[in-house]
Amino acid sequence: MKLLEDRIRTEGIVKSGNILRVDSFLNHQMDAALFREMAREWKRRFAGTEVTKILTIEASGIGLACIAAEEFGCRAVFAKKTAGNNMDADVYATKITSFTKGRVYDVVVSKRFLTKDDRVLILDDFLANGCALLGLMDLVNQAGATLVGCGIAIEKGFQDGGRKIRDMGVKLESLAILESMEGGMITFREND
Amino acid sequence: MKLLEDRIRTEGIVKSGNILRVDSFLNHQMDAALFREMAREWKRRFAGTEVTKILTIEASGIGLACIAAEEFGCRAVFAKKTAGNNMDADVYATKITSFTKGRVYDVVVSKRFLTKDDRVLILDDFLANGCALLGLMDLVNQAGATLVGCGIAIEKGFQDGGRKIRDMGVKLESLAILESMEGGMITFREND
Repeated sequence: MKLLEDRIRTEGIVKSGNILRVDSFLNHQMDAALFREMAREWKRRFAGTEVTKILTIEASGIGLACIAAEEFGCRAVFAKKTAGNNMDADVYATKITSFTKGRVYDVVVSKRFLTKDDRVLILDDFLANGCALLGLMDLVNQAGATLVGCGIAIEKGFQDGGRKIRDMGVKLESLAILESMEGGMITFREND
Repeated sequence: MKLLEDRIRTEGIVKSGNILRVDSFLNHQMDAALFREMAREWKRRFAGTEVTKILTIEASGIGLACIAAEEFGCRAVFAKKTAGNNMDADVYATKITSFTKGRVYDVVVSKRFLTKDDRVLILDDFLANGCALLGLMDLVNQAGATLVGCGIAIEKGFQDGGRKIRDMGVKLESLAILESMEGGMITFREND
């Protein structure tokens, strides 16, 4: 998506360790007008899929999910990171490893908000190794819901998360796919 | 705001300890169409105040802030809860006590996203004792920014946060003010 790629080029900051900082518009400060265009793009790419629920994980995905839910005309749910003390019978729970934070999170979603009748679109800001997406897919699976697909803002194409998810037959739509950030130079995959 | 009060009456669940669960539409599952109407109401109540930045705190405030930012035509920023290991020179930091979670959070916002030129509207989902709002106001103050006011979805009128904030001369606009939840019966303050 050219609008997002342009924004990454102008506002993104490449840090050592293949870190891309886009916190001026995506995940600390948020540009809701850009989110609106991204949501419309996901709506086009998932046209006709009859999404009934947007699922994301706190915190960075929430803004995107909320704007997208308006476009899709459904409610959004965010999975919560817990310290492991909310593990009651009313939630689906899974574990997600965050490599950037260097820890494992217990992640839960209330059984009331994810059911077998739901057709779920998972959204998140970043895709790298795929741990967060796989965890969210596990929650969808536990609920017996139907996974429509996954929408990502920025995929790190040089890590293996995207390939893993697509190899599972999941429709994965990343709006910008980073091919390389070597030497601070950002290049995008051509066919995104 | 009648729309929100009606939703609280129909979907809210009163739990022991004066806890109101509104997680089906406000802070776990999110009804973005309702958020849109709430954002428009805040826009009316803060008309002419030239807001340049919406500030909230993760995670529950993010969806509201993002939709409101679209209405106000500005960017939203969420203050981040940290484990105290992100305390570098690039952030404003404060401490916020969460009574529901029973802990103290270090809360930070990047200095790049809150400046002396900003006119800030603080938004959050709940107001009880006011700790979160006071912490966010401290961040605005550290930045030398101008506080336009605070917008709250649900104020617990029987706790003292609202009075404290208003006594400071801050324009505080809560869209629903709970007067009492005794015996599971929800009553709202008349003049909200």
